[in-house]
Amino acid sequence: MDNTKKATSLSTLGEFGLIEHVTHQIKLKNASTIKGVGDDAAVLDYADKQQVVTTDLLVEGIHFNLMYVPLKHLGYKAVMVNLSDVFAMNAQPKQITVSLAISSKFSVEAIDELYEGIYLACEKYGVDLIGGDTTSSVTGLVISVTALGEVEKGKAVYRSGARVNDLICVSGDLGGAYMGLQLLERENEVFKVNPNVQPQLEGYDYILERQLKPEARGDVTKALKTIDVTPTAMIDISDGLSSDLLHICKASNVGCNIYEEKIPLDYQTKRFADELSINPLVAALNGGEDYELLFTIPLADHDKIKNDPDITIIGHITEQQEGANLVTALGSAIPLQAQGWNPLKKN
Amino acid sequence: MDNTKKATSLSTLGEFGLIEHVTHQIKLKNASTIKGVGDDAAVLDYADKQQVVTTDLLVEGIHFNLMYVPLKHLGYKAVMVNLSDVFAMNAQPKQITVSLAISSKFSVEAIDELYEGIYLACEKYGVDLIGGDTTSSVTGLVISVTALGEVEKGKAVYRSGARVNDLICVSGDLGGAYMGLQLLERENEVFKVNPNVQPQLEGYDYILERQLKPEARGDVTKALKTIDVTPTAMIDISDGLSSDLLHICKASNVGCNIYEEKIPLDYQTKRFADELSINPLVAALNGGEDYELLFTIPLADHDKIKNDPDITIIGHITEQQEGANLVTALGSAIPLQAQGWNPLKKN
Repeated sequence: MDNTKKATSLSTLGEFGLIEHVTHQIKLKNASTIKGVGDDAAVLDYADKQQVVTTDLLVEGIHFNLMYVPLKHLGYKAVMVNLSDVFAMNAQPKQITVSLAISSKFSVEAIDELYEGIYLACEKYGVDLIGGDTTSSVTGLVISVTALGEVEKGKAVYRSGARVNDLICVSGDLGGAYMGLQLLERENEVFKVNPNVQPQLEGYDYILERQLKPEARGDVTKALKTIDVTPTAMIDISDGLSSDLLHICKASNVGCNIYEEKIPLDYQTKRFADELSINPLVAALNGGEDYELLFTIPLADHDKIKNDPDITIIGHITEQQEGANLVTALGSAIPLQAQGWNPLKKN
Repeated sequence: MDNTKKATSLSTLGEFGLIEHVTHQIKLKNASTIKGVGDDAAVLDYADKQQVVTTDLLVEGIHFNLMYVPLKHLGYKAVMVNLSDVFAMNAQPKQITVSLAISSKFSVEAIDELYEGIYLACEKYGVDLIGGDTTSSVTGLVISVTALGEVEKGKAVYRSGARVNDLICVSGDLGGAYMGLQLLERENEVFKVNPNVQPQLEGYDYILERQLKPEARGDVTKALKTIDVTPTAMIDISDGLSSDLLHICKASNVGCNIYEEKIPLDYQTKRFADELSINPLVAALNGGEDYELLFTIPLADHDKIKNDPDITIIGHITEQQEGANLVTALGSAIPLQAQGWNPLKKN
């Protein structure tokens, strides 16, 4: 942290003062937001649209480490993980609420940085901040975000719609967020031993951004609409490809085959995995936090998406009794396992 | 805690197992809930109704002390504080999401108790649990609840609608929750010194219930509809009468006079305040957590509500420049101050 920065104690504002301080500049953007911050509840009007609601809780020491995560990035990411769920329903995000539990070590300026990231995300994705709750915390920072979005009646895409022979597609590339985290943790360990050593982050800007500033893939759902492809099932990759594909298989009562050599990996992901002697495929399958979209489409739509450089077909849906498998480059089938990020099992 | 109880480690279930464990018995009650727990987001359809959204964050060590708050009561109350906000908008609660951060000290049985209270609240108030997030916590328990409710188009009641000469009304009685907390804290102190001393709680069941198991006053908004009274402004009393009435005055650009001798106090509130040599009026004005409704109605509606034993007229709205005042029994006017519960100022 830059010690030259001004640090105003939160106690100078109090709860209502802080709420006023961080929300006074809000300009509502969406017609569905009738009343935002400032009453017992926000008021919304979705007219003839259906609505999706999703929520995520981020806890200091579990989901983020303030030693190496800038607060602005944290605010941005806290919104992004929720918008990603909204897009994964084939919906358009419209509103969020943000609740914070803050320890007294935080200054007003620190909270401002956090909200800078939150508002940047709102601005970029056309979302209104409509409410929340602000309280103190005995120990670390807790961020709870709820996102609301709209979808045409009957157009929500569930995990349960995958059918046998559907193609399994993924946007972007996988494993980068996990490798970015490994890099940050390595440099943090070095810093703890010698605070004067400059972190070695050069050449790894992409995987760092994947970890620190992920983008929810609304551009992908929009592109699919443009080419008139409606996924039969969709989920966002937050726990890792294995875990999230198994969610689709379980909800749809189907099996799957995905192919090792088809899984999209970025050059930096592969290079840093190599540096750490990790198989980058493990990062893609079990790393999580990529916030890419994993979806299935009818085989008949193959020609519509085959030339999209941002979408990769990684396999296909099979009968349930065939199981969920990763087919290796050598042709052997290995059952997929949900080894995704599971905080409760780690305890 | 009863040490004979079974204590199953959360690690035996993991995150997805725990979610399945606590949500498998959900039966959706509301037509507006299209899809509940089990996908990236819930899907709702409010048709021609408007919607209200509110959220609250409860943090162990700040909002509750597990030394004397049973988990079932905590779950119930976490829902109630949100439903109270929904009713304060003149809306009907329909859905909630519940997110938990849990430390490893909790057993599956403890989480079951918490959810027992959550489901009891959902059952009693006709609300669907539609989603949430479950993660681990480095230290204490954190509960984040978001509630959604429906209201006829244009019928939401804001804090901003109070007009000069409106009557100021409050449901139930005030200060009880605060006195209940004082009682629990006193007995907890005694217990810490000598765990073998039985707590002295006899005769104080009402104020204990006010603190541990508050009820959101949907019965009051329903009764007002029945007698065809629409409040001009409304808020729920969570921070104390002073603070919450000042919110109405500020949002409505008005002043107010409320009368000391009109403020409804229960016998137990007065008796225990007397025991502690506290003025019970202070508990009513600044104690908070009563979750009663504070609302204003046109003077013309006086006859409609004057015989309701559960509603007390405590004063009236004045011009803004007259300020917000408590008029004492002796006739002097004391400016109201927002000394309500403010966790961030306490730090």
